Amino acid sequence: MRELIERLLEGVPAACVLTDPDVTASYARDQAAFADAGAPAVVVLPRTVEQVRHVMRTATALRVPVVPQGARTGLSGAANATDGCIVLSLARMDRILEIDPVDRVAVVEPGVVNAALTRAAAGHGLTYPPDPSSWEECTIGGNIGTGAGGLCCVKYGVTAEYVLGLDVVLADGRLLSTGRRTAKGVAGYDLTRLFVGSEGTLGIVVKAVVALRPAPPPQLALVAEFPSTTAAAAAVCAVMERGHAPSLLELMDGTTVRAVNDLARMGLPESTEALLLAAFDTADPAADLAAVAALCTAAGATEVVPAADAAESELLLQARRLSLPALERLAPSLLIDDVCVPRARLGDMLDGVVAIAEKYGLTIGVCAHAGDGNTHPVVCFDPRDAGQTRRARESFDAIMALGLELGGTITGEHGVGRLKREWLARELGETGVEVQRGIKAVLDPLGLLNPGTLF
Amino acid sequence: MRELIERLLEGVPAACVLTDPDVTASYARDQAAFADAGAPAVVVLPRTVEQVRHVMRTATALRVPVVPQGARTGLSGAANATDGCIVLSLARMDRILEIDPVDRVAVVEPGVVNAALTRAAAGHGLTYPPDPSSWEECTIGGNIGTGAGGLCCVKYGVTAEYVLGLDVVLADGRLLSTGRRTAKGVAGYDLTRLFVGSEGTLGIVVKAVVALRPAPPPQLALVAEFPSTTAAAAAVCAVMERGHAPSLLELMDGTTVRAVNDLARMGLPESTEALLLAAFDTADPAADLAAVAALCTAAGATEVVPAADAAESELLLQARRLSLPALERLAPSLLIDDVCVPRARLGDMLDGVVAIAEKYGLTIGVCAHAGDGNTHPVVCFDPRDAGQTRRARESFDAIMALGLELGGTITGEHGVGRLKREWLARELGETGVEVQRGIKAVLDPLGLLNPGTLF
Ligand SMILES: Cc1cc2nc3c(=O)[nH]c(=O)nc-3n(C[C@H](O)[C@H](O)[C@H](O)COP(=O)(O)OP(=O)(O)OC[C@H]3O[C@@H](n4cnc5c(N)ncnc54)[C@H](O)[C@@H]3O)c2cc1C
Ligand SMILES: Cc1cc2nc3c(=O)[nH]c(=O)nc-3n(C[C@H](O)[C@H](O)[C@H](O)COP(=O)(O)OP(=O)(O)OC[C@H]3O[C@@H](n4cnc5c(N)ncnc54)[C@H](O)[C@@H]3O)c2cc1C
Repeated sequence: MRELIERLLEGVPAACVLTDPDVTASYARDQAAFADAGAPAVVVLPRTVEQVRHVMRTATALRVPVVPQGARTGLSGAANATDGCIVLSLARMDRILEIDPVDRVAVVEPGVVNAALTRAAAGHGLTYPPDPSSWEECTIGGNIGTGAGGLCCVKYGVTAEYVLGLDVVLADGRLLSTGRRTAKGVAGYDLTRLFVGSEGTLGIVVKAVVALRPAPPPQLALVAEFPSTTAAAAAVCAVMERGHAPSLLELMDGTTVRAVNDLARMGLPESTEALLLAAFDTADPAADLAAVAALCTAAGATEVVPAADAAESELLLQARRLSLPALERLAPSLLIDDVCVPRARLGDMLDGVVAIAEKYGLTIGVCAHAGDGNTHPVVCFDPRDAGQTRRARESFDAIMALGLELGGTITGEHGVGRLKREWLARELGETGVEVQRGIKAVLDPLGLLNPGTLF
Repeated sequence: MRELIERLLEGVPAACVLTDPDVTASYARDQAAFADAGAPAVVVLPRTVEQVRHVMRTATALRVPVVPQGARTGLSGAANATDGCIVLSLARMDRILEIDPVDRVAVVEPGVVNAALTRAAAGHGLTYPPDPSSWEECTIGGNIGTGAGGLCCVKYGVTAEYVLGLDVVLADGRLLSTGRRTAKGVAGYDLTRLFVGSEGTLGIVVKAVVALRPAPPPQLALVAEFPSTTAAAAAVCAVMERGHAPSLLELMDGTTVRAVNDLARMGLPESTEALLLAAFDTADPAADLAAVAALCTAAGATEVVPAADAAESELLLQARRLSLPALERLAPSLLIDDVCVPRARLGDMLDGVVAIAEKYGLTIGVCAHAGDGNTHPVVCFDPRDAGQTRRARESFDAIMALGLELGGTITGEHGVGRLKREWLARELGETGVEVQRGIKAVLDPLGLLNPGTLF
């Protein structure tokens, strides 16, 4: 431990090295309930690529595990410390190095906050689409680590679609450049996308070239109330089948709607069992909304309320944004699932979650990026109640089992982390795990990078 | 050899195994000039996944190299046989297994021809965007192998963006499923994208889940004539900088324009040094074209001709389609480069190619997916003339060197194959090559899959 700190200080300024156990303990975990976490030996907050390389060389020399961290907003424990590890926080490498409106790219350090990039891009008439709800806090490095999604991904795609090239410090301190800043390129294996979603287990991202898009016009939204989640899911399928391209298509189930109602007195009818929010940022959004409204009505919506303008649209979307805070009032702790199913199975997924909630006697509210089939069942429980806690964990697992049964994946956007690692093997199968472990061994032969995450 | 055939016939019907040397020789190479090719021992055309697995098990048992092939329209020698290899043609595995308009996916065998999928999707109001100019011949398996692009990729992205999940037979015959059929998913490393663009060196794709999009409205095009490529490149930059989203933005240089003129008597003025083709499939394409026309004029276009309707647009695009046939009339052989540079460097790239043509005393016509910065300099030469042949190869290399110098890549969409393998190392650097070789070794430890391609 003394040796570790001394060696680190040979290449990293003292101001970037935290050793006070009270302080280092505050870096122990992300936002996931249930995932195990250890006590870091030290937290390093480098400012330069050279400093990151020094940390990794030191870690390799002394065989000390390293856990990379962004803003620790993760929901799978993928940024949780292991005992005696170096926490390597990239939060201070937060410069936007370049925004190029001709090439439509930004070059950023990993600690840049998602919203900061979006705002900087807006100054050039551009936008960085991936928009996790945590966008005011989470970092581009963390988004790359998890392969983050968000609300507008139903139209614009997820993080993987926007990362063109990376600079990565490998476990032994070597610097690897992947990809390109050109619009296209197929020279060799796509290492860039291999790092996206690798949850800090393959290397440390120290620079990224990301694609930007022209900023779309402001979106116009509608809200539709349904007497059942089945009807709402049918409407989602109808909208997508008819070739619409909503910029947002979100669903909240009855539990979530009532919680939001209680929190914000939105005056939604208590009989509502599902709320659908749709938005368009097309040339004629009102026309698109009218078509979607008709599909909702045909699917059984009891009321459809289109917004008159962008401001009213924002108000409607408030309901969605309040989902998590509202559910937080129902129980001291939440366990947020992230199962993504084929769009056509959304109704089955939602029905199944109701059955699971009943079986385990727990409140489970669902909000979903419905257009993508990506559901977030939120299990509400009291961690002081051992029985409830056990049932929370069991229901969380039952939800993943259902997702796989329906042809889906255990994680649409939050990642595997420490929370779902046994489930990863179930999803990938034996050959899949063998190949993935083989790749891990190529990049991190000593197993120092984020051990316990993924595998 | 006898043993090889006997063992193959234990799991593959005789009708799928070709051994006549005259026939097998016809499978020796793709469409690339200059790439070396050997004589296959046998050509196998399996119809089922089990047959593919049997071939790979046999190959592993007997240590025989395997070269996967689609339609052999490749332009880098990536499908070329090595001496004594098994050519594994997937051309007969050509069933479209499913098209699902709710999930907007197609499930296909690898031998499905690109245009066949596009046509089948059209029956559901959908489209499969990646549209290489060879689309009437090339296969989805080959497109995945090379990471193919095309004309509409400037708006809709390339093959990598559309492949959601794969079934892959590994070198030893194991079957690996990667990815998903859901819209999103981040469970484990992105093996799907690792296989896209891997040029048959990591495994045999036997099934693919690909994303489809709603079919866009018919596009409307314009053609703009420029007195210099510099002016045309400036127009391209202006169009992209202003946030336009053309569904096609192609450039032809003066050499190509004159060749097309000669072939098809299109009546383009001989003084034209560059032709720009732009198209939009937006809600109001005429308005978008008018804005682009103004930008072209401001950049120095001497004439801008917008099409009145879809039919007229098709006529304009003919000029682009005739580029290769027209250049083919200038010399007995063509060597087609594929350098992609940052959009802002397109002008420098085009100037540099002129200088290279002069230096080596050869005709080099350029057509380019200009919106992507992806140029195809076409070196025209006579292979019977040793000096010309040498200079053709040298100029081809000089073009790649220039591309790298301008911050670009040696291949935007055609792949590395056998033609550019020394150049791959220059682009990736030492660490890059080491990591890529490490990954190759995980999936193909005996080095049986397409040896000589990439590395
Ligand atoms: C309220 C709330 C709402 C959310 N909404 C969404 C949502 O809509 N969509 C969504 O996808 N997620 C959402 N999340 C989850 C979370 O915000 C994302 O996973 C985000 O990408 C994490 O970013 P971070 O900077 O906090 O990374 P962290 O949590 O610190 O780390 C995430 C992973 O990336 C790795 N990592 C971080 N930086 C680097 C680096 N430089 N190099 C290598 N590895 C690195 C870590 O090791 C870890 O494995 C939400 C979370 C909260 C709390
Ligand atoms: C006239 C013409 C125009 C062209 N225009 C374009 C263009 O606009 N854009 C573009 O990108 N390309 C273009 N090309 C190049 C070529 O068509 C593409 O590279 C195409 O993707 C090759 O497909 P194929 O089926 O012919 O594959 P092949 O040439 O047979 O093989 C290509 C590669 O994929 C591998 N492969 C094939 N099938 C499988 C499988 N099932 N599993 C694993 N590996 C496999 C092969 O080993 C090889 O490495 C053009 C070619 C021609 C002749």
